[in-house]
Amino acid sequence: MVRADCPRQGREDGPECRLHIDPVYAPALDGIEQADRIEVLYWLHEARRDLLTQSPKANDVTRGTFSLRSPLRPNPIGSSIVKLVRRDGAVLTVRGLDCLDGTPLLDIKPVRCGYAVEAPAKPGISD
Amino acid sequence: MVRADCPRQGREDGPECRLHIDPVYAPALDGIEQADRIEVLYWLHEARRDLLTQSPKANDVTRGTFSLRSPLRPNPIGSSIVKLVRRDGAVLTVRGLDCLDGTPLLDIKPVRCGYAVEAPAKPGISD
Repeated sequence: MVRADCPRQGREDGPECRLHIDPVYAPALDGIEQADRIEVLYWLHEARRDLLTQSPKANDVTRGTFSLRSPLRPNPIGSSIVKLVRRDGAVLTVRGLDCLDGTPLLDIKPVRCGYAVEAPAKPGISD
Repeated sequence: MVRADCPRQGREDGPECRLHIDPVYAPALDGIEQADRIEVLYWLHEARRDLLTQSPKANDVTRGTFSLRSPLRPNPIGSSIVKLVRRDGAVLTVRGLDCLDGTPLLDIKPVRCGYAVEAPAKPGISD
């Protein structure tokens, strides 16, 4: 996928995507299968880092970068909660990711109750 | 707060915490007041980075680091969704944060519909 084709947000009914973890880290994935949803952090390596304000819809409305989830930000770290479809060794298949092929992976975390401060027991955020 | 006192997860009824943004980035906060909840990414600067598996409850149950939200991880980036209480210039007051005083801040994002792949319209995740 090239940047122009990249969706603004991932969708659960979107295509399956694969996260390739360096096999050195495979032991760190033990138990990940128990998570229905995982949080993926990744480095948006093609993003500009110099915009304090921006107009994401290319209209005249300009907002501060930290009030947007735009990929263009001082520390361009993407954060998505995706559906874990399966694990095959050091490869995770997920749905709902919205990043480019080749995007460097930074971290993977299970989504849990208590991750968010509000409504921890509701289905929107708990697993 | 020192590490031994640090809560395992933030709580909405916990103390107010302040995020100090470098004033250079203050324009990037414009519009953040519209968010009820924000996602905070921070660098867990005191965390070990060499554990592929760990036993967070100090019992005999060992799990892979990526199946846990432990702060000890190869790229020790913390991610919390917190309640935004108010903004005063380049200082944000929040509830629900669980990190140490002096923890370097990496990024701030609003919490929105579409951030998670499941149940985007439910109150647990939307703002």
